[in-house]
Amino acid sequence: MAATAAFRDPIDLSAEQPAFPPPPLGARPVDRAAWIAAFHHVRDETERRAAPLSPEDQQIQSMADASPTKWHRAHTTWFFEQFLLRQYLPGYTIHDERLHYLFNSYYVAAGPRQPRIMRGLITRPNAEEVAAYRAHVDRAVDALLKEASAAVLDAVLPILEIGLYHEQQHQELLITDILHAFAQNPLGPAYDSDWRFPAATPASGTIDLPGGVTQVGHAGSGFSFDNESPRHDVLILPCAVDRALVTNAQWLAFMADGGYSRPELWLSDGWLAAQAEGWEAPGYWRLDGDGWASMTLAGIRPIDPALPVHHISYYEADAFARWARRDLPTEFEWEVAARDGGLADAFGHVWQWTRSAYTAYPGYRPVEGALGEYNGKFMSNQFVLRGSSVATPEGHARTGYRNFFYPHQRWQFTGLRLANYRG
Amino acid sequence: MAATAAFRDPIDLSAEQPAFPPPPLGARPVDRAAWIAAFHHVRDETERRAAPLSPEDQQIQSMADASPTKWHRAHTTWFFEQFLLRQYLPGYTIHDERLHYLFNSYYVAAGPRQPRIMRGLITRPNAEEVAAYRAHVDRAVDALLKEASAAVLDAVLPILEIGLYHEQQHQELLITDILHAFAQNPLGPAYDSDWRFPAATPASGTIDLPGGVTQVGHAGSGFSFDNESPRHDVLILPCAVDRALVTNAQWLAFMADGGYSRPELWLSDGWLAAQAEGWEAPGYWRLDGDGWASMTLAGIRPIDPALPVHHISYYEADAFARWARRDLPTEFEWEVAARDGGLADAFGHVWQWTRSAYTAYPGYRPVEGALGEYNGKFMSNQFVLRGSSVATPEGHARTGYRNFFYPHQRWQFTGLRLANYRG
Amino acid sequence: MAATAAFRDPIDLSAEQPAFPPPPLGARPVDRAAWIAAFHHVRDETERRAAPLSPEDQQIQSMADASPTKWHRAHTTWFFEQFLLRQYLPGYTIHDERLHYLFNSYYVAAGPRQPRIMRGLITRPNAEEVAAYRAHVDRAVDALLKEASAAVLDAVLPILEIGLYHEQQHQELLITDILHAFAQNPLGPAYDSDWRFPAATPASGTIDLPGGVTQVGHAGSGFSFDNESPRHDVLILPCAVDRALVTNAQWLAFMADGGYSRPELWLSDGWLAAQAEGWEAPGYWRLDGDGWASMTLAGIRPIDPALPVHHISYYEADAFARWARRDLPTEFEWEVAARDGGLADAFGHVWQWTRSAYTAYPGYRPVEGALGEYNGKFMSNQFVLRGSSVATPEGHARTGYRNFFYPHQRWQFTGLRLANYRG
Amino acid sequence: MAATAAFRDPIDLSAEQPAFPPPPLGARPVDRAAWIAAFHHVRDETERRAAPLSPEDQQIQSMADASPTKWHRAHTTWFFEQFLLRQYLPGYTIHDERLHYLFNSYYVAAGPRQPRIMRGLITRPNAEEVAAYRAHVDRAVDALLKEASAAVLDAVLPILEIGLYHEQQHQELLITDILHAFAQNPLGPAYDSDWRFPAATPASGTIDLPGGVTQVGHAGSGFSFDNESPRHDVLILPCAVDRALVTNAQWLAFMADGGYSRPELWLSDGWLAAQAEGWEAPGYWRLDGDGWASMTLAGIRPIDPALPVHHISYYEADAFARWARRDLPTEFEWEVAARDGGLADAFGHVWQWTRSAYTAYPGYRPVEGALGEYNGKFMSNQFVLRGSSVATPEGHARTGYRNFFYPHQRWQFTGLRLANYRG
Repeated sequence: MAATAAFRDPIDLSAEQPAFPPPPLGARPVDRAAWIAAFHHVRDETERRAAPLSPEDQQIQSMADASPTKWHRAHTTWFFEQFLLRQYLPGYTIHDERLHYLFNSYYVAAGPRQPRIMRGLITRPNAEEVAAYRAHVDRAVDALLKEASAAVLDAVLPILEIGLYHEQQHQELLITDILHAFAQNPLGPAYDSDWRFPAATPASGTIDLPGGVTQVGHAGSGFSFDNESPRHDVLILPCAVDRALVTNAQWLAFMADGGYSRPELWLSDGWLAAQAEGWEAPGYWRLDGDGWASMTLAGIRPIDPALPVHHISYYEADAFARWARRDLPTEFEWEVAARDGGLADAFGHVWQWTRSAYTAYPGYRPVEGALGEYNGKFMSNQFVLRGSSVATPEGHARTGYRNFFYPHQRWQFTGLRLANYRG
Repeated sequence: MAATAAFRDPIDLSAEQPAFPPPPLGARPVDRAAWIAAFHHVRDETERRAAPLSPEDQQIQSMADASPTKWHRAHTTWFFEQFLLRQYLPGYTIHDERLHYLFNSYYVAAGPRQPRIMRGLITRPNAEEVAAYRAHVDRAVDALLKEASAAVLDAVLPILEIGLYHEQQHQELLITDILHAFAQNPLGPAYDSDWRFPAATPASGTIDLPGGVTQVGHAGSGFSFDNESPRHDVLILPCAVDRALVTNAQWLAFMADGGYSRPELWLSDGWLAAQAEGWEAPGYWRLDGDGWASMTLAGIRPIDPALPVHHISYYEADAFARWARRDLPTEFEWEVAARDGGLADAFGHVWQWTRSAYTAYPGYRPVEGALGEYNGKFMSNQFVLRGSSVATPEGHARTGYRNFFYPHQRWQFTGLRLANYRG
Repeated sequence: MAATAAFRDPIDLSAEQPAFPPPPLGARPVDRAAWIAAFHHVRDETERRAAPLSPEDQQIQSMADASPTKWHRAHTTWFFEQFLLRQYLPGYTIHDERLHYLFNSYYVAAGPRQPRIMRGLITRPNAEEVAAYRAHVDRAVDALLKEASAAVLDAVLPILEIGLYHEQQHQELLITDILHAFAQNPLGPAYDSDWRFPAATPASGTIDLPGGVTQVGHAGSGFSFDNESPRHDVLILPCAVDRALVTNAQWLAFMADGGYSRPELWLSDGWLAAQAEGWEAPGYWRLDGDGWASMTLAGIRPIDPALPVHHISYYEADAFARWARRDLPTEFEWEVAARDGGLADAFGHVWQWTRSAYTAYPGYRPVEGALGEYNGKFMSNQFVLRGSSVATPEGHARTGYRNFFYPHQRWQFTGLRLANYRG
Repeated sequence: MAATAAFRDPIDLSAEQPAFPPPPLGARPVDRAAWIAAFHHVRDETERRAAPLSPEDQQIQSMADASPTKWHRAHTTWFFEQFLLRQYLPGYTIHDERLHYLFNSYYVAAGPRQPRIMRGLITRPNAEEVAAYRAHVDRAVDALLKEASAAVLDAVLPILEIGLYHEQQHQELLITDILHAFAQNPLGPAYDSDWRFPAATPASGTIDLPGGVTQVGHAGSGFSFDNESPRHDVLILPCAVDRALVTNAQWLAFMADGGYSRPELWLSDGWLAAQAEGWEAPGYWRLDGDGWASMTLAGIRPIDPALPVHHISYYEADAFARWARRDLPTEFEWEVAARDGGLADAFGHVWQWTRSAYTAYPGYRPVEGALGEYNGKFMSNQFVLRGSSVATPEGHARTGYRNFFYPHQRWQFTGLRLANYRG
């Protein structure tokens, strides 16, 4: 059950990052080597994260919301084969036509697919065969990037870029999904026994926004997902946003004050979810002899009061804010406060629930075709999270990034920071 | 199976309205007679709506979202007994202590209650006994309003007022719930065979909002629910809102163009709901010989293309807008357009889905106690609807009124109007 | 909420019974008056049982296994219309063609039908209209029996006879179903506040069967259901069958000895059912202040230790027998012991679970057509009960009668007596 | 995806069988070497069956009724550790105490255990570690059998014997469970591409039993499960039992005659199951281009009309018999016919459904303790199957053997032969 150093230092944003992100799409001349390096950087990170996992570990799907490691490895590969190589690499040989059905995810326009809930039942191809599939596609993408004409490259790079960010999203899911899977094992196995959650940056007080009309959404030449556009005006009301994240210590105070047993603190749907699932603490917490412990990537560990609370659903975040007589910030209050540099630990610790329902920016239209299914079709019943987490790959997040989950979900590294209006 | 004229002309807003709404809370001297008249006006309307229904009709609950007519009649009565008479009428004799458990709804703070799904299983008290309960409480409220001191009246009237608007909400539900119940009966019984959906006002084109910061939410001395406050600034972007509602004719065009069979038009959750429930048309529609018909309050009737489409879920409204390459308006775009008088049939036909998730206004805090459970705890997973419907009692709605339902629900009289940005 | 004397003395088998059962089918000359009297005797008993129930009481269906009183009244009427009048009464006018769909039960061959689970949603026709339906059919059956030619009568009487026994079965269900419905009402209403469970006949010891080959199943000229044939040889092993039924006192001893918390006493499926439904005592029992009470037809009453235990599932009966280191008798051991007159309270108290799975007698073949669906298609997953209960109409049961229910069901008046082998 | 010769010739009963079954328990002197050989024979067969399966294949659980290969390998090992080594081998070191929770199955008396439905989520220990567990226990059992005193051996051998037969049962399940798992993979992988279902023995006509009292159940000195006792008298009625099994050709005739669409042929519960699961053919059958094919251990193969039909539920077997105007035999009719040598292919092809519900033999009492949970607690809602299947290990079955499954289950190699009474 040994583990490598796979996922030890995932958030060192200060380190030199030559390979990722790739150059802006519009940069000329096109730096083919930089794109190839970015491609390999991302592809290698996936394998680095999968490395500590046995074939058995990589096989299983522990709930409908999660996917097997092997599936993540294959599906991200299928993405490049389906959207890039089929169309743009002359003479490309499909690795195995039968894999198409197995490793499509939710792209209805890309044809029928294995039901999500049954992803864990595909034992063949096995982990080794998926490695061969990855190698086959990697070689072909290399060839494409090296040999494509300038005109083809213009069509290829936007798809390649989205493919890289797409694979990074699956890198994060790979980690959160395996944590969920291991949490079902009474033995509490460790993904990496040396793994540690990063310490919080000392911070206190609030950053006070004066209010007014400002612009939010994607700007500039870098990458963004379609749900960050169009850039548009929003009105910020005068408000205060906490510099620090809510900690385990604060959460324990909420619990001690009956936080999980007082329905008046909860949204109605939240109370139903909490009762149905028997929530008495954040996800993966368990009473262990003297006190609270938690299933982590390093196995079962005592709760550290100084760390930001995580594995929190929106319902819990909302109840906590009500208990504290504060609010969650809106996604735009968060964005403006982060842009101004006032937030500690905005990135690399926990995704932060906002009180903004996930919805389209004014005038948003999905792109045509299968890639149009990427973000727009999920714009109901979910809430926006901002920032990034300990599991987010380096270079993936940005101030305008919009993550989204259902309000009952808590297997991600999700936490919160508080805010309030100054009316 | 005869029906009375019970629910024949519910939307004549131009008629003289002496009894409802009651005077503003702050008006002095307090006009006790006007309050008593308003109280009886509302109480009588409930009975008028129940009158065509047999004891059997009043008994049943056809789904978890609906309630029996008898329960609506008793629960609205319990509201006055629980929040008004218990506390403020000296010497008041509780009609029957055992009814408390049966007719509380979701007020957790008011104690345990009959599970919602089992409301249809309470045959005793019967309809006649509920009538006696209503009469008992009506007499006591009369006495309270006549005899209370001025100081007591100051405490009483705000509760009375919310009780009246609360009962009006149940009047609307009484109608929509019995329609759902009758729709389960293969014989398609009529609530009132003379009932007709009101004709649409001729209208075309859009009202164009120039954009800018404006105030929304409750203002003035009239009644509003807590979710309409605090009044606050919002930013309207330049947009166009259709004057007319979407009609059945337009909906039939959507259906003819594969609206219910093209997943690319649908939200992901919406597509799942549509498949799971087998949606191929709006709620209650059925193919009937030559064409489409619908279960209505007058029984099964052919679809009239000129009427506004109704019994539409948010998911369907959203798919229709995507198909039409338009948007739903936000709740504030709707409010500003309605305030400016530009919308036809804003009230009295169908509730209109907006693209705004139902959430708290900035700085909103629920009131303390059981009445604080009225609106705030439902602020997740639902969408705001604006306007009012054919089933809404006279005098109930207003421009700032925020109705809300889950995006899959369609047993209400729900429809839509379209909008788009002019970026 | 008053009740009449409706169901006060249902088991006085010693009373003169001129009207029921009707004459044997083969008796010549045919005594038309006796058949008419039997018909009215049965039809009147149904109405006598329904009389204490309000229109609301008659409307509801409290679980999938139960049906509304109104449905029982209408379905038994439909049976005569469908199988007798349609075919054999010239010029018969169907009361209302639309009722056919509503009141068919499970006769697949008789056409589509209202889903069982939705029987409680049919408010129209109402109770009064069902009374009119009954009267219409009663008049027509009268006319048929008076005026039919001898040849027609030969075809009619076997169907009439099965219709009468069929209606008696629904009379029993009417009582057990309304008890279940009332048990869902927290107020615990009484069907008849003067109702009492009949006292047990003093009895002790066993009747010892010597063993050997004997014949079981239907013999003679009286009525029997098809599942009691063919008469055939069975081998009885030497065994002892208790003369007395198991009492509440004995059941309390089982409970005190951990009967509901020791999995080793239970069948695997039984333990799952007991855990899933939270069984800690027989059906309808509840702890009430000082001790155990039970919901009964007279409302909530203290447990009487001397009465036979009832509302027991097969799983509980089996666990009790295992705890007592005894067996349940097979259905044939019961039948032979009852035939020999050795059993106390074999009839009129509780149906008695046997350890015999409900299966076909050797060589059994269902009759052709819809009436062939009566018994044969239920021959899996159920157990045979013998005897009859306090709710069984007079004249309905006999020594060879085979009742059957699923092993988890306990809303019937079901109990047990013990036995064991003497190997 | 290569396969070894693992499961190529499983039914050659004529081959020399030196190792299994072991000597009768009462044989003296005790032949320790023979017992050790039998032990290794059984243990090796499990590994031989698992050999073609990758770590991924061994990991998954494709439905609640099935278990992972790895679990079968570990659970059978746990059985020897729990019931043999813990108690009887002085100084035995438990391999890993934590495995106890993971690999107990349903033995409530042996303590808490991993929920059945979550067996597929245990990735650690992995397949290799389970091999080490098996080796550890094998060595210890070797030592015990070699070194135990005669007195200890007397206690040990009955437990060892049941452990061997227990492991053989899991050998059969290992095969049927992996077939089910592979059938969920759209690629239809082969367990062993050279595997073939054994050809049927030519046979026709019936064996006619004259009827009379005879003895059934276990006799003699060989092994039997407790559910085969006590031996007792039964009465056989004159009947005819087919010599041959029902074939695919006959089943295709049933299908062509509407067998799956005529409710009158089906038990009520069976029809519900068939509709709910969409049965139109035996388990694993699919329309494949020109005709019917089936998922088999060799992958997807065309249906061979000459083979006995298999993957049939009891409900289907019963419907087929009704369609053929025949019966299924009772388990005792089957046993007597088999004893008399009249049946072709009684063993080694398909388990044969009988019309006997699975219940206790007269006077049966489970043994005390955890091993008492082996058979008795399943005696409800299941039917007896007789014979053995292509997946049954050599030497496992016998004429009196009682297998049992729920009537809806069809992932086993289950088929039927017909019979009828000669009244």
